[in-house]
Amino acid sequence: MADKKMVEAITSMEEDFAQWYTDVVKKAELTDYTSVKGCMVIRPAGYAIWERLRNELDKRFKETGVQNVYLPMFIPESLLQKEKDHVEGFAPEVAWVTEGGQQPLTDRLCVRPTSETLFCDYYKNTVHSYRDLPQVCNQWCSVVRWEKETRPFLRSREFLWQEGHTAHATAEEAEARTVQMLNVYADFLEEFCAIPVIKGKKTEKEKFAGAEATYTVEALMHDGKALQSGTSHNFGDGFAKAFGIQFTDQNNTLQYVHQTSWGVTTRLIGAIIMVHGDNSGLVLPPLVAPTQIMIIPIQQKKDGVLAKAAELKDMLSDFRVKLDDTDKTPGWKFSEQEMRGIPLRIEVGPKDIEAGKCVVVRRDNGEKTDVPFAELKEKVGEILAQMQKDMLERARQRRDSQTYTAKNYEEFKQIFAEKTGFVKAMWCGDRECEDKIKEDLAVTSRCMPNDQEKISDVCVCCGKPATKMVYWGKAY
Amino acid sequence: MADKKMVEAITSMEEDFAQWYTDVVKKAELTDYTSVKGCMVIRPAGYAIWERLRNELDKRFKETGVQNVYLPMFIPESLLQKEKDHVEGFAPEVAWVTEGGQQPLTDRLCVRPTSETLFCDYYKNTVHSYRDLPQVCNQWCSVVRWEKETRPFLRSREFLWQEGHTAHATAEEAEARTVQMLNVYADFLEEFCAIPVIKGKKTEKEKFAGAEATYTVEALMHDGKALQSGTSHNFGDGFAKAFGIQFTDQNNTLQYVHQTSWGVTTRLIGAIIMVHGDNSGLVLPPLVAPTQIMIIPIQQKKDGVLAKAAELKDMLSDFRVKLDDTDKTPGWKFSEQEMRGIPLRIEVGPKDIEAGKCVVVRRDNGEKTDVPFAELKEKVGEILAQMQKDMLERARQRRDSQTYTAKNYEEFKQIFAEKTGFVKAMWCGDRECEDKIKEDLAVTSRCMPNDQEKISDVCVCCGKPATKMVYWGKAY
Repeated sequence: MADKKMVEAITSMEEDFAQWYTDVVKKAELTDYTSVKGCMVIRPAGYAIWERLRNELDKRFKETGVQNVYLPMFIPESLLQKEKDHVEGFAPEVAWVTEGGQQPLTDRLCVRPTSETLFCDYYKNTVHSYRDLPQVCNQWCSVVRWEKETRPFLRSREFLWQEGHTAHATAEEAEARTVQMLNVYADFLEEFCAIPVIKGKKTEKEKFAGAEATYTVEALMHDGKALQSGTSHNFGDGFAKAFGIQFTDQNNTLQYVHQTSWGVTTRLIGAIIMVHGDNSGLVLPPLVAPTQIMIIPIQQKKDGVLAKAAELKDMLSDFRVKLDDTDKTPGWKFSEQEMRGIPLRIEVGPKDIEAGKCVVVRRDNGEKTDVPFAELKEKVGEILAQMQKDMLERARQRRDSQTYTAKNYEEFKQIFAEKTGFVKAMWCGDRECEDKIKEDLAVTSRCMPNDQEKISDVCVCCGKPATKMVYWGKAY
Repeated sequence: MADKKMVEAITSMEEDFAQWYTDVVKKAELTDYTSVKGCMVIRPAGYAIWERLRNELDKRFKETGVQNVYLPMFIPESLLQKEKDHVEGFAPEVAWVTEGGQQPLTDRLCVRPTSETLFCDYYKNTVHSYRDLPQVCNQWCSVVRWEKETRPFLRSREFLWQEGHTAHATAEEAEARTVQMLNVYADFLEEFCAIPVIKGKKTEKEKFAGAEATYTVEALMHDGKALQSGTSHNFGDGFAKAFGIQFTDQNNTLQYVHQTSWGVTTRLIGAIIMVHGDNSGLVLPPLVAPTQIMIIPIQQKKDGVLAKAAELKDMLSDFRVKLDDTDKTPGWKFSEQEMRGIPLRIEVGPKDIEAGKCVVVRRDNGEKTDVPFAELKEKVGEILAQMQKDMLERARQRRDSQTYTAKNYEEFKQIFAEKTGFVKAMWCGDRECEDKIKEDLAVTSRCMPNDQEKISDVCVCCGKPATKMVYWGKAY
């Protein structure tokens, strides 16, 4: 444990959660600062995580019939302005290209903050008949929003994401796709990222600019703050009317399409850090981890140790396994493996070899298991599967322990004065109450969950009859 | 064949090659125009090809130790200006962001045309000791160059590419990596895309802005024009000196790193179209094709036909196979499958079923084979493998038949007056001759090939002693 000091200490999360996050991101070598204000480098260790998330999500998308495309990164100002709510929502935070090829542009170009308008422009050209529907497209790209305060993965001027955009013949189909994709996100977060989420609908105040309805999956971080982890929007036919996207239906009648969009971003990496990390650094769920196992030889200069370590690596080639045979000390290697969140460490030294076994150490709970070489492959598979399950369960228990209920405004205020977490409370549905709560307590409505409960009969704020139960919280 | 007319005819390549290309891109639904001048939509059929190319290349990169990263899309003007040749090369064709978040920017940002300067900025922060070397990074992203004349895939204001950027301790290592990546491209183009290439070095005039040496793989299109299909640059320590990227070597001495960069773009899709396509549309090599086999039932309303077609599809699930069971006519379906370049078509109707066989039709040469159901899986594998080989061989033969040699300027001029293709001719090494050739004949030096031959003793232009054999040609 003395070797711990060799890897520069990170701030403990109890002491300063924000600093802990920054330290982990930096010391696990996930990102780096750049000379471009508000923009980050995603380093190999960070990008490898994004590749794992992207590939898994992409597979799940394609199983539902999604096709990938690529649309331009620029949006002419004239195009952006076609849908009124949308342009009002995004105009304040866009970057403008005003010169190209040493000439000023007549119609300046915004760097896409999101691509609804471009997809509308595309669908207008390609959708003519009911036979051209549905269109179920997605793109993986980067987008730009001119944020003032930035933090790696959570909020930056440029970030990576996917944006799905669909067009359907009917309102019912569009609603079904909106819900379907929210479920894809929720299942992905729980099954793959080991992050339990609340599924629900955003209030009018919090919905996406131009949407009829926004659905969200909300996760709770270690510090009790909420993170909106994925959203799915139903646009109805608002964009279709603004852009004139029409098709001839089976009765030869001209109809407007109904549209949806849905996205997740590199923020997911921030969620994984803040849900699973601990004071030794990153903890990656086995399914997410680019490297699942680090084999660390003990007294590696002794005869046969490195050879046995290499043999174990070959034995485990069905997993994502690496061998650290550098000349660092084992203690240093342990700290690095822990900092980087690699799920399992396998220690093997002369005494282990004599006994025909090695030691498998879980990153999430430190549990050590002696495993005979002959059983290693099977046992490692079992431990990784168990660890994936345990991480989800632990996250769920913590989330539940940080979820409170409030029947009236006194309770509500007291909880937020003392704690950070989700508070379930009833709401009358009026914007005024939502605004007042935000002003009084700096918390926002996270969502109206699909699973409604009745906490009381009246709005937690004004006491008028309640229409919805809402999750409230401080958010990233 | 009468059904052919049902799919709108494309211009024949003999009549108008440029129009043929445009027709194929449009009718195979690879791209679409947008409201953003000079930028394209890459549609599902086009993007699926890019995904195949990207995934294969990415796998080959990673086998050589490449790690993916993501750097910002913006470059502050002050950063771009640090390397003199580089900024001179790119400044005329960049797009400038001058306003963000409703504020004018003090240091305007260029949308990356390439990312050497950002990688230098990153390496300057992360490379300190010889232990930090080599750095072998790559990113898949889009870049912007303000082209005046644009064509889908070949030249557009925004395009997709990968850019690898490496930093090494020695000049030898940097040169070895430059050559290694050129070989990765050449092997990928030949083995995967069935496109034979000439490997060589660019002249001083044609090399990349800021490079010490640029290597290239050059392919010949159906119309005899050359397409630069991938480049690999050795920067020496020029960028390192401009950006101050230094490390402490094993003797505790401060040294500059040596750098490389290398890239291929969505242009590759243009190359595949123009090398393999024919007057019925796209022809995709089996390894590239997102869909390798289209099963087309004949008289599909007859009992058992659709069931048998579905059975064949299941039987072929190791391949990328689809079944067209829409209510279009078989002839229409044939034309669509041909237009989209799907390598194999399997026809199966009542008579085939009675005879216990189906008909397998190759897209590249129209060859039809009756195949008993029991042998289908094996046979299809064989035919696809043979087709992949034949396509490379056919492309090589055509390339060779369009490659000429010229001993003197008379021959040289005559060949280019009558033909389009590669002309191998000697060169003295002087820029004046290169400029004169370009002015006289509108052809450029494509490369000084690795495999040098001696066509004559003297420069084809000036008659002075020759130093190099050069491939000359008209280029896209």
